[in-house]
Amino acid sequence: MKQPVLLLTGFEPFGGESINPSWEVCAALQGEPLDGLRIEALRLPCVFGAALELLDAGLARHAPALVLQLGQAGGRPDFTLERVAINVDDARIADNAGACPVDQPVVAGGPAAYFSTLPIKAMVAALQDAGLPASVSQSAGTFVCNHVFYGLMHRLATRPGVRGGFMHLPLLPEQAARQRGAPSLPLATQVEAVRLALRTAWRTREDLRVGGGAES
Amino acid sequence: MKQPVLLLTGFEPFGGESINPSWEVCAALQGEPLDGLRIEALRLPCVFGAALELLDAGLARHAPALVLQLGQAGGRPDFTLERVAINVDDARIADNAGACPVDQPVVAGGPAAYFSTLPIKAMVAALQDAGLPASVSQSAGTFVCNHVFYGLMHRLATRPGVRGGFMHLPLLPEQAARQRGAPSLPLATQVEAVRLALRTAWRTREDLRVGGGAES
Amino acid sequence: MKQPVLLLTGFEPFGGESINPSWEVCAALQGEPLDGLRIEALRLPCVFGAALELLDAGLARHAPALVLQLGQAGGRPDFTLERVAINVDDARIADNAGACPVDQPVVAGGPAAYFSTLPIKAMVAALQDAGLPASVSQSAGTFVCNHVFYGLMHRLATRPGVRGGFMHLPLLPEQAARQRGAPSLPLATQVEAVRLALRTAWRTREDLRVGGGAES
Amino acid sequence: MKQPVLLLTGFEPFGGESINPSWEVCAALQGEPLDGLRIEALRLPCVFGAALELLDAGLARHAPALVLQLGQAGGRPDFTLERVAINVDDARIADNAGACPVDQPVVAGGPAAYFSTLPIKAMVAALQDAGLPASVSQSAGTFVCNHVFYGLMHRLATRPGVRGGFMHLPLLPEQAARQRGAPSLPLATQVEAVRLALRTAWRTREDLRVGGGAES
Repeated sequence: MKQPVLLLTGFEPFGGESINPSWEVCAALQGEPLDGLRIEALRLPCVFGAALELLDAGLARHAPALVLQLGQAGGRPDFTLERVAINVDDARIADNAGACPVDQPVVAGGPAAYFSTLPIKAMVAALQDAGLPASVSQSAGTFVCNHVFYGLMHRLATRPGVRGGFMHLPLLPEQAARQRGAPSLPLATQVEAVRLALRTAWRTREDLRVGGGAES
Repeated sequence: MKQPVLLLTGFEPFGGESINPSWEVCAALQGEPLDGLRIEALRLPCVFGAALELLDAGLARHAPALVLQLGQAGGRPDFTLERVAINVDDARIADNAGACPVDQPVVAGGPAAYFSTLPIKAMVAALQDAGLPASVSQSAGTFVCNHVFYGLMHRLATRPGVRGGFMHLPLLPEQAARQRGAPSLPLATQVEAVRLALRTAWRTREDLRVGGGAES
Repeated sequence: MKQPVLLLTGFEPFGGESINPSWEVCAALQGEPLDGLRIEALRLPCVFGAALELLDAGLARHAPALVLQLGQAGGRPDFTLERVAINVDDARIADNAGACPVDQPVVAGGPAAYFSTLPIKAMVAALQDAGLPASVSQSAGTFVCNHVFYGLMHRLATRPGVRGGFMHLPLLPEQAARQRGAPSLPLATQVEAVRLALRTAWRTREDLRVGGGAES
Repeated sequence: MKQPVLLLTGFEPFGGESINPSWEVCAALQGEPLDGLRIEALRLPCVFGAALELLDAGLARHAPALVLQLGQAGGRPDFTLERVAINVDDARIADNAGACPVDQPVVAGGPAAYFSTLPIKAMVAALQDAGLPASVSQSAGTFVCNHVFYGLMHRLATRPGVRGGFMHLPLLPEQAARQRGAPSLPLATQVEAVRLALRTAWRTREDLRVGGGAES
């Protein structure tokens, strides 16, 4: 019998970078067991549309029990659990296929937004308790990260029982070394954080009732 | 015959402040004419629930042709036009009645989010062209600002033809003078920016197709 | 009899800008009386070396009773009173004559640094009391601002009784409107702040004993 | 015959923290050999005056060939090599003995400042080449870090041939996990960075001629 799967997605590099922490973490966790399940890593292109086709193939192939998507958030110093995906593509920079959509829906006719169905407060608390900086984020942006997050939640809306969500990762130190003033965390720390976040997501059915808001 | 109304809402002070730029701007613009309409200012309490009751009274009394809501965004250096309101109250600090809701919907059973129906790209462009720093914001937070923004858009969803949205304002210099490192803009600049934003909102029926996105 | 002079210096635009708040403020205050003295404004080129030649000419012509130098500090949200000038030129970008010195002394054989002889704590306090955001800065950088500040203090070291110092100004809103996320304050606010700083500098002989430090 | 010593100093925790990365790094490197020398770690109290007494004892005991001082810089995302120490104590918060000096000289009658005699440009370049984020800093603040840095350089001014300098370290992730938005790097990364900085300092007699400046 096939082992049930926790699907972890990451991205190829974009924005002039030659590495993306989200895929490096995926590669490190590929095949790892967790509570009798197996982590499967999926590498998505940083391309509007094509990323969702790859996601569809991954969902079809693995029929995962839970999906955690990862993305790179240059400028953020900590691990951020995204609260909400919105139905808009608005690219400040071109994607890896050169596309720069402005104010297009991810899914025409889809709802304005989907909330993460992962226990983001419990995930933040577990990371902080383990000495890893983490917080809730109120926006996953409007680029390919939000695009695949919205696309995922739209698909999961019709698959009851399968939960999903998105976690942004800081840059790696080797990326920050070429930028002025960018915060970063090394791969080993990032792998530890994602492993813990994934375990907490899987084991926690009811989220904590603790604050994670922002005034603006 | 009564003049049609542009409704401008602002907030009372909160978070230990004794002044709130959003209300100061409203007070300065109260009664001002614009294209044959009249600006009416409405002062909302920084209180979950009660703020929406006041908003309902204002909507009933004025039957406005358009609504622009204002709020204070400590830490932001520019005028930010909010793209989306989400259906969640999650308070990091207590509101002015001492309430601290965690992960409660603004409207039980309401959609996850509403997009602004104001031309936010055109408003940003008009401000920048006038030498006023402005940008699109992807999150209005999860406090009372987002609460009244979501509440407004939920009400307007059943009033075809009435458009609405939210604009965050920086602190005033007198507030920043008591904080370490907070950006600010003086009242005269803020009044000029809101007047221009409101005029652009009223006169622009189809928004510009220019980028205003974020990677994360 | 000639009126004694308060010398105010500002810079021409640099770094791709077409305006510099430090000169705009100078121009606005040129000729203004203060306690029986007259403000004289001097425009310095943003050029290593040449700026000090102009300064020498201004010192010779006006024999000022006090000198306040102004410069633009993109990224800073408030008015910053510089504590210390250091004996080094280290340019990250080229000056307006294309020079990019690296680790050169401002004055060969000069002391490592000079402290401002203006009452910077009293100036910060006066600004804050007037509702204007202000703080002490521990570094004027290593570009032309620090260059003219060091050059001034080196010259004043041999003119007992003539005090001098440097104040950095935020960007103007019209500059910030073309940048992403830069704080700014409008010219009227900047003029008010510099006038008050200058008056406080002139009238205060013994500085306040209040903290204005930084951990790092 | 006794091995020559590279003296590495770090601080006890301060400002409400229970750990200080500067001492943790020192402890990890204590006794390690480098080019035939031995690293000796010295733990300084975060106390004005007392820290310099301990430093004197360490200098007397080890007669080091080179001294690298370490300190914690909350808020900085990278490793920062300090360019200059200034002759002032100005405490925004109390030191660990409750003292809060304002505008006192570190050494009465001492020069206004001392420049680091370590090759800070070469150290930054070596770190960046190794994928570790690093930059030159123009200010070590006015608290106990700058105090011991100035005190060290004042002592070394009369010991020809012994070079010294200061390097600030980011917070550790376990510290950042309890703060909102603070950047951090884990201990293993910090140890690697300090080891490389120390080796580069020891082996480099003439610093690189590359820019490391700031406009303000």
